[in-house]
Amino acid sequence: MANNFYPVILAGGRGTRFWPLSRKKRAKQLLALDGKQTMIQQTVARLLPLARPKKLWVITNEDLQPAIAKQLPRLPNRQLVAEPVMRNTAPAIGLAAFLLLREDPTAVLGLFPSDHVIDDEKRYRETLQRGIKIAAAGANIVVLGIRPTRPETGYGYIEVGGAYQGEALRVRRFTEKPDAKKADEFINAGNYFWNSGMFLWSARTLADAMREHLPVTATLLEEIAATFGTSKFAAKFRKLYPKCENISVDYGVLEPRSAKGEEAGNIFCLPADFGWNDLGSWTALHEHRTAKSSPPEENVMVASGMFLLNARGNYVHAPGKFVAAVGVSDLVVVETPDALLITTREHAQDVGKIVKYLDEKKLNKLV
Amino acid sequence: MANNFYPVILAGGRGTRFWPLSRKKRAKQLLALDGKQTMIQQTVARLLPLARPKKLWVITNEDLQPAIAKQLPRLPNRQLVAEPVMRNTAPAIGLAAFLLLREDPTAVLGLFPSDHVIDDEKRYRETLQRGIKIAAAGANIVVLGIRPTRPETGYGYIEVGGAYQGEALRVRRFTEKPDAKKADEFINAGNYFWNSGMFLWSARTLADAMREHLPVTATLLEEIAATFGTSKFAAKFRKLYPKCENISVDYGVLEPRSAKGEEAGNIFCLPADFGWNDLGSWTALHEHRTAKSSPPEENVMVASGMFLLNARGNYVHAPGKFVAAVGVSDLVVVETPDALLITTREHAQDVGKIVKYLDEKKLNKLV
Repeated sequence: MANNFYPVILAGGRGTRFWPLSRKKRAKQLLALDGKQTMIQQTVARLLPLARPKKLWVITNEDLQPAIAKQLPRLPNRQLVAEPVMRNTAPAIGLAAFLLLREDPTAVLGLFPSDHVIDDEKRYRETLQRGIKIAAAGANIVVLGIRPTRPETGYGYIEVGGAYQGEALRVRRFTEKPDAKKADEFINAGNYFWNSGMFLWSARTLADAMREHLPVTATLLEEIAATFGTSKFAAKFRKLYPKCENISVDYGVLEPRSAKGEEAGNIFCLPADFGWNDLGSWTALHEHRTAKSSPPEENVMVASGMFLLNARGNYVHAPGKFVAAVGVSDLVVVETPDALLITTREHAQDVGKIVKYLDEKKLNKLV
Repeated sequence: MANNFYPVILAGGRGTRFWPLSRKKRAKQLLALDGKQTMIQQTVARLLPLARPKKLWVITNEDLQPAIAKQLPRLPNRQLVAEPVMRNTAPAIGLAAFLLLREDPTAVLGLFPSDHVIDDEKRYRETLQRGIKIAAAGANIVVLGIRPTRPETGYGYIEVGGAYQGEALRVRRFTEKPDAKKADEFINAGNYFWNSGMFLWSARTLADAMREHLPVTATLLEEIAATFGTSKFAAKFRKLYPKCENISVDYGVLEPRSAKGEEAGNIFCLPADFGWNDLGSWTALHEHRTAKSSPPEENVMVASGMFLLNARGNYVHAPGKFVAAVGVSDLVVVETPDALLITTREHAQDVGKIVKYLDEKKLNKLV
């Protein structure tokens, strides 16, 4: 176990696609969608064999901070950082780099989304340990890549080139979410991976990359980080953070760095063969739950009891209720104390439109 | 207004087809399925212009008695009669006859189901007034017949013959629920009506018919009625009523009487052209609600708010909740504090199977 490894969990996302269960103050990462623990609790539990709680950092927003503090009681309070305004991943990750550079100049950071599912945790940690070694060895950036199984247009892709130290591959290029035609080409080409959003790099490498590619934001973040642990931090954070560029780390740092060329970029892709699912919708959750043990036409019921007659492929979330499903297929029905969603597995990606409507109508209690 | 007219409302039915809203102690007639008043409150309100509360009787069972007393506060307590065991309509109606014969030997009884919908109340009362006249005129039985609109197999049918006093028709024959082929024949024949379950007859005529066609039950009921208003009534009722035949008034009284022939039977059918619906299922309720004002593909939503996107022909009951329906058609979704029903308009008649399952599994809280 590398004692300079610092996991940084990004937990500021809103996750509207799990409405009505997910809300502004109870985002996807705070839900127990798969098992008894919430997504962020599972993320932490997976990482604890590699890093003690005092090395763990969580970056979130002010809406979610109280709930996360409650769900992660062992996390030291200072390491739960709440952005005063929402920014994309580059400022959040950059801030983590500058904060940790002051904690430990040799720090190797692991960046982790807080709301993904991992099937094989042992293999996950083995992969991370290999990645940590590469990241610690110099000005290297390691990204965990998922071997694509379909021409998904919802993810960023990584184009890889030659092999490096066994299973790692040199990264040629990061691309934003492609259209369907491009996604097809990527799949057929064979040397593309999905960008998992999991990165490993030293705090120094990341700080340098920020200074090079996003110099204005880097200066602001350094100024914020310099006050960390003092009484001035909160005010400085609130004043300067909104001035940071609202840009993703992929677009702001990794793409320009990879543009230097395969050799000069020093970015490496580690194939992640540990079973990964980002649970992007109710449909993805249904597929994940049925893939584990049952045929895909299976019903998944979160309920106190059930009666099923000619019912196939439904996902029903109604904890504490007796659910009777008769003559219905491929539905998604989710019940909370104040709302009821009725849709199909096919239409579940439209759930974001409901949240948009509720936002517009200022039905704040429901979002 | 005939001052010897006594409406008797039959409110002992269980109405399992509105599960999960309907329960053993909250049967269909106690629900506000159409409007603010419950079905039994609507039934009473419709009749009050024809008979004051002190002439109104309700026959129910012990499970429902407390709730009905609450819903009908103006009904004198003695006139809310609770059967100690469930029997079919013949004993309930026969008991009403023997009770009212003692109250008023000239009484004309109107028998009314407690859970039907009437669109045109003025016409309904006009029809009743004509029927009361025929019933009061002698040993006549009047039944309100509904002109059939489809070959329904769920209702009993009345075959009529010649006209009598204007719009009334002489009844030839009562038939039980037919099969699909028979129902088709009835519709094509043109001289068949649906049996509405609404009857008018004098207490004396009914008492005589009971004595003739169901002599054992008639004797038991007379013995019970003789103790009404005394301290012995409850015990007598509990002891003798279970011995009464478990038979419907149609099968036990009307069929044998009509077998005497059109002339001798003295049974008359009054066509009921006032808009009638027995709301036999969630599907029937959806049709009734949409027929009033909207196209049939309309959604009917009992909810505190809603967002609809590509949603057609759904019935959703989730009072107090915000309902979002996306990409779904012809569903029936009903939510209560302890249960959630998900089915289609086509399958809503299978709801009784759920209640059967719950009965078998002794899940008593849910039935």
